[in-house]
Amino acid sequence: MPLREDMQLISVDDHLVEPPHVWQDRLPAALREIGPRIVREDGAAGGTDVWMYEGRRYPQIGLNAVAGKSPEQFGTEPMRYTDMIPGCYEPEARIIDMDLDGVQAALSFPSFPRFAGTVFLQAEDKALALLCVQAWNDFMLDEWCAAAPERFIPIAILPLWDVEACVAEIQRTAANGIKAISFTENPVPLGLPSFHTTHWDPVFAAAQEADLPLCMHFGTSGQAPTTAPDAPFAVTITLFGCNSMFAAADLIFSPVFHKFPRLKVALAEGGIGWVPYLLERADYVWDRHRWYQNVNQDVAPSELFRRHIWGCFIDDVHGLNSRYAIGIDRITWECDYPHSDSNWPNSRKRAIEVFAEIPDDEVHRMVEWNSRELFNFPRVA
Amino acid sequence: MPLREDMQLISVDDHLVEPPHVWQDRLPAALREIGPRIVREDGAAGGTDVWMYEGRRYPQIGLNAVAGKSPEQFGTEPMRYTDMIPGCYEPEARIIDMDLDGVQAALSFPSFPRFAGTVFLQAEDKALALLCVQAWNDFMLDEWCAAAPERFIPIAILPLWDVEACVAEIQRTAANGIKAISFTENPVPLGLPSFHTTHWDPVFAAAQEADLPLCMHFGTSGQAPTTAPDAPFAVTITLFGCNSMFAAADLIFSPVFHKFPRLKVALAEGGIGWVPYLLERADYVWDRHRWYQNVNQDVAPSELFRRHIWGCFIDDVHGLNSRYAIGIDRITWECDYPHSDSNWPNSRKRAIEVFAEIPDDEVHRMVEWNSRELFNFPRVA
Repeated sequence: MPLREDMQLISVDDHLVEPPHVWQDRLPAALREIGPRIVREDGAAGGTDVWMYEGRRYPQIGLNAVAGKSPEQFGTEPMRYTDMIPGCYEPEARIIDMDLDGVQAALSFPSFPRFAGTVFLQAEDKALALLCVQAWNDFMLDEWCAAAPERFIPIAILPLWDVEACVAEIQRTAANGIKAISFTENPVPLGLPSFHTTHWDPVFAAAQEADLPLCMHFGTSGQAPTTAPDAPFAVTITLFGCNSMFAAADLIFSPVFHKFPRLKVALAEGGIGWVPYLLERADYVWDRHRWYQNVNQDVAPSELFRRHIWGCFIDDVHGLNSRYAIGIDRITWECDYPHSDSNWPNSRKRAIEVFAEIPDDEVHRMVEWNSRELFNFPRVA
Repeated sequence: MPLREDMQLISVDDHLVEPPHVWQDRLPAALREIGPRIVREDGAAGGTDVWMYEGRRYPQIGLNAVAGKSPEQFGTEPMRYTDMIPGCYEPEARIIDMDLDGVQAALSFPSFPRFAGTVFLQAEDKALALLCVQAWNDFMLDEWCAAAPERFIPIAILPLWDVEACVAEIQRTAANGIKAISFTENPVPLGLPSFHTTHWDPVFAAAQEADLPLCMHFGTSGQAPTTAPDAPFAVTITLFGCNSMFAAADLIFSPVFHKFPRLKVALAEGGIGWVPYLLERADYVWDRHRWYQNVNQDVAPSELFRRHIWGCFIDDVHGLNSRYAIGIDRITWECDYPHSDSNWPNSRKRAIEVFAEIPDDEVHRMVEWNSRELFNFPRVA
């Protein structure tokens, strides 16, 4: 039962590093100087490329873009485009890297704007910020995905500070072929209303109407799991999936899925091995504690998860061993290129190992069909 | 393979509600007025019993002490001793309730001092606070456990603000027969140094020397997992086990177990279903990220967990299904009387169900022998 050659790997979580021209090509001339642009700073070892935006300096052009390095070389973030392999920022080079890796299609999150575009939340000039969001989405559709439409799944970011503008951007990008929306796993740490309010209802309604899943990448709340200021960063990396556990628990005890019965959420990079534990625990709590709480009294939280939430994993043996408790049709695979969690360029090789004992039809669901159905991204015959 | 009659259930996590006389019987006469005492306040429905300590009012005498109530009655905390069944605060009555429940022996955490005695951290008069800690430990040893030494496993709290005093109290109580130490899952939110410092080394050394496991009950960091101020409390209850995940990740990437190779930690009420996911993830991170970080380079974090950490569960079917990935000898059972997560008075009945498909020797390990060995609490012939 090895991964058959006719099974195409679809990655629901990769990352692209924006090339310098994304905003300079798309913003009105008068705004290019204040919009995001790359500045070469002099310094040791040939200088540094940094993003400048509204006078603020963003020194990491491609956080964690380590594809092509060995683990012993991790820990030093790329400081210049030339520190990265071109597949990080060029779609044509990315295709070559995907071919090397045995990956057929991939959805890529932003880097400079952060995974859910939350850099633009901090903007002083929100009119400019909206143009920046639209420019990124247009780059995604017209340049990145246009380079190979059957290989790239287009995802949009939203102007999260303005619900009406979010709805308009969902409708605009949906009309242009977008297949997913990058959304925050928790708006509260960003200073925005929670999933327990009615604030986001127009956004959820628009996403549901357009049949666009919300991809909630871990970390998009802006909160990293930490234990102590002096704990090694390995603790935070290990616990990042807890962000997705928090998001799942928050959503399944919220009114969201009761109001939007066709809304879909994918927990990008969240892992899946924790899902059976969380669902069992949530139902246990619901059985005992729903009576006196403002939660839905009729539908068990695990049932809401199974209807609405997709898990995403890179390399999660326990999760695959627990696949029936999660739901074979709710598991999707990811590559995470060019980040350090990725197995690139050995993703397919590693997938052959982890799927070795799993029946063909189940493997095919998890590596390809679940993602194609979730993102309305059919095979091209 | 049902739970055999000769298998004794040992609960590693129950709770007692302190009767009013704990400190009034033990503090010097001059300190009784300022030490913890119960005051009856007039009010609706017969008034309220509250703890007063150093002029501060602690209104919940037995948070979540709901044994004997149905879930529909949860949510209203006991306001008076007469709102609770006597087994909450009387050892003789507790034995009767344990017999009803089919439980042979139990370890009980404090209520008013909080699970790790952290109420005394807030004290203005630390000399008085030390006497209060000692009084609770003496109550535990001389009154609670003395009522039935083969039924109660004695646990001590520590004066966490003073490492030398902690060491002295470990040694004093060890000499008097204590079997466990209640310790915080994370000192940082309490304003204390982290596990990544040398601060706690004397405490860990004393616990190791006395062969006393550290029981880290979830919530003892003083931090509850939350997503949003308006999220229902069910979200927090569901996610409480994440505190134990955080504690485990923090410890296995810390120097603690490298410095104290015989130190033992039990994650009270943390659940076990998340353990395989966390260990797989920790090793994945260690494989890729240890090179540039201040973490041990030789021993995989999962190996440290398996040597040093015991999981504790009430009702965790996925955890039991995953027992080989956790380690049969690292799983202990708990009742959680009189809290709302408990199955009392049906703990044994429920245990018969959840252990039904598990081989006898494994069941016996998990319900009895692991705990007897961990706490040096042998069967009385």
